[in-house]
Amino acid sequence: MRAAIYRGAGHVTLEEVPDPTIVDPTDAVVRVLRSCVCGSDLWAYRGVIQRAVPARLGHEFIGVVEEVGREVRSVAQGDLVVAPFQWSDNTCPACLDGLQTSCVRGGTFGAPGTDGGQGEAVRVPEADGTLVAVEGGMAAVDQTMLPALLALTDVAATGLHGAVLAEAGEGATVAVIGDGAVGLCAVLGAREVLGAERVILFSRNEARQKVGRAFGATDVISQRGDEAVAAVRELTGGLGVRHVVEAVGTPESWQMAMGMARVGGTIGAVGVPHTMPSLPLFDLFRAHLRVHSGIAPVRHYLPDLLSRVLAGKYDPGAVFDLTLPLADVASAYQAMSERRAIKVMLV
Amino acid sequence: MRAAIYRGAGHVTLEEVPDPTIVDPTDAVVRVLRSCVCGSDLWAYRGVIQRAVPARLGHEFIGVVEEVGREVRSVAQGDLVVAPFQWSDNTCPACLDGLQTSCVRGGTFGAPGTDGGQGEAVRVPEADGTLVAVEGGMAAVDQTMLPALLALTDVAATGLHGAVLAEAGEGATVAVIGDGAVGLCAVLGAREVLGAERVILFSRNEARQKVGRAFGATDVISQRGDEAVAAVRELTGGLGVRHVVEAVGTPESWQMAMGMARVGGTIGAVGVPHTMPSLPLFDLFRAHLRVHSGIAPVRHYLPDLLSRVLAGKYDPGAVFDLTLPLADVASAYQAMSERRAIKVMLV
Repeated sequence: MRAAIYRGAGHVTLEEVPDPTIVDPTDAVVRVLRSCVCGSDLWAYRGVIQRAVPARLGHEFIGVVEEVGREVRSVAQGDLVVAPFQWSDNTCPACLDGLQTSCVRGGTFGAPGTDGGQGEAVRVPEADGTLVAVEGGMAAVDQTMLPALLALTDVAATGLHGAVLAEAGEGATVAVIGDGAVGLCAVLGAREVLGAERVILFSRNEARQKVGRAFGATDVISQRGDEAVAAVRELTGGLGVRHVVEAVGTPESWQMAMGMARVGGTIGAVGVPHTMPSLPLFDLFRAHLRVHSGIAPVRHYLPDLLSRVLAGKYDPGAVFDLTLPLADVASAYQAMSERRAIKVMLV
Repeated sequence: MRAAIYRGAGHVTLEEVPDPTIVDPTDAVVRVLRSCVCGSDLWAYRGVIQRAVPARLGHEFIGVVEEVGREVRSVAQGDLVVAPFQWSDNTCPACLDGLQTSCVRGGTFGAPGTDGGQGEAVRVPEADGTLVAVEGGMAAVDQTMLPALLALTDVAATGLHGAVLAEAGEGATVAVIGDGAVGLCAVLGAREVLGAERVILFSRNEARQKVGRAFGATDVISQRGDEAVAAVRELTGGLGVRHVVEAVGTPESWQMAMGMARVGGTIGAVGVPHTMPSLPLFDLFRAHLRVHSGIAPVRHYLPDLLSRVLAGKYDPGAVFDLTLPLADVASAYQAMSERRAIKVMLV
């Protein structure tokens, strides 16, 4: 089969690799229907972090089960399935706490020795604890729903997780830092799932602003840094906001987050902090700020979000504003790296 | 009157200073009945942090109101009062959120231009929002209750705040790092106010272990660092604890806290982080750890804790294991700095 391979910063190719097979009896092999490029894939692509070369790429995919190991019970050949970006057994203490990204038997697609989502097929370990089947299969799904289903594999759930970590709830005012797919999905999650009343999004990109507004942002602020903080203070009577979603992971975004958080406020952080190694504790201490961060346990949110999507009540699919064939995966990376696309879907 | 003066690291004297007077109509002047030395006073005494020289000392005191400004309504001459270590108006948005240590009109006793608690009298700004009167006055109070009342001015409420920040609750297992007065009071607060079932205290000092057990610690661990972490892991089936109170504020104590916290656990931090400028965000992110820190809003807890003490149901007074006359304030600092006393009460 063919799969995307990372060959170094700025260099992604599509290559012939061995077909995946069942290795453990808990495995499934899934034929990929749709996959996509993640903002977190760009860290290595831009050379910000090191990554082994060569490496498989991609951790977001939906597909059809091709084969299952003899111990797999919850999915069967032919099922349309949604995969979270990490596999998990869904039975260990961390999984039972809803923190499947800390599963003792967990791992990430695209890590060394595993298949990536940006390929024609994927071996899925711990299939029972990982995959969620779409009831009714392909017949139950309108083709227009596929982008939404694909978004559930990471960004839709990660954005919602940011809003949950920020303790956004019914009637809350929430600020969302980051206008990538995760930030936009945080807007959607805060409004539609958690019932936030006011969601302030920071963006100076017109296309992203538009998606943000469609997802429920009530205020869009185009300033950055100190000016953005001042704008939020002005909107909130000088007090700042109680709930801040940090969906970038850089020193600049954290400075904004801490600057606009109200005394006693909560920062929910889902931006992978590659360039933000440490937090200024004294600043947090002085302002009673609460910091909740973590790798989103997509599997935890998947059943609920899937039923919302299937019911036509939740559509994060608009984060995909460019669709390319898998053969053009190199162009997909380029488009996202140059911010010409919010998120690229691969067919 | 006489008051303790900081003259540089290791150098505290008792000196003659002007008697306090009413400056603002919202002031009260309080004659000090009991005061004490705080662990946080030791940072400058030991030369770890800089402090202006000369400076008034002490921020914990109970006393009798001697005079009030013309706008003061809630306390009157002759009232026995408990003062939190910071004054606050108790009406601003932060105060209404229960975060009186972020009051817009607040400040700390002993800061430049203010009186310290370690003196014969104190001018108290924002008296209505700050002081809490003991109903019935001196007549209602057994002399043996004075240490408990004095403990309410800081450590009893700060310890409880640590346990609240750590989200300890009914039936919880809590680890408390720090066997100073605050850590010991975190044990008491977790058990008596919040209903924690199991409280693990770290201490290798016999006197402190004894107070810790009297306050409700169910497990006392004498190891430190990695050994302490291993001991907690063993006690908790390898998982760690969901609720950790960090009551020290050093890199060592934070390493212990993060090491023994269960995935998704909460660290409630009340140790002033003078030597812990930053937190390793990636470690928090990876383990879904929640960090809640802040300067304890003693005023928020004072009414409830005061009624518990007056009802004979709460006694944090045992944190005082040495009582000295104010004239011996220099010896009080020495005893605490050399860890010969948990906390020294000044009469």
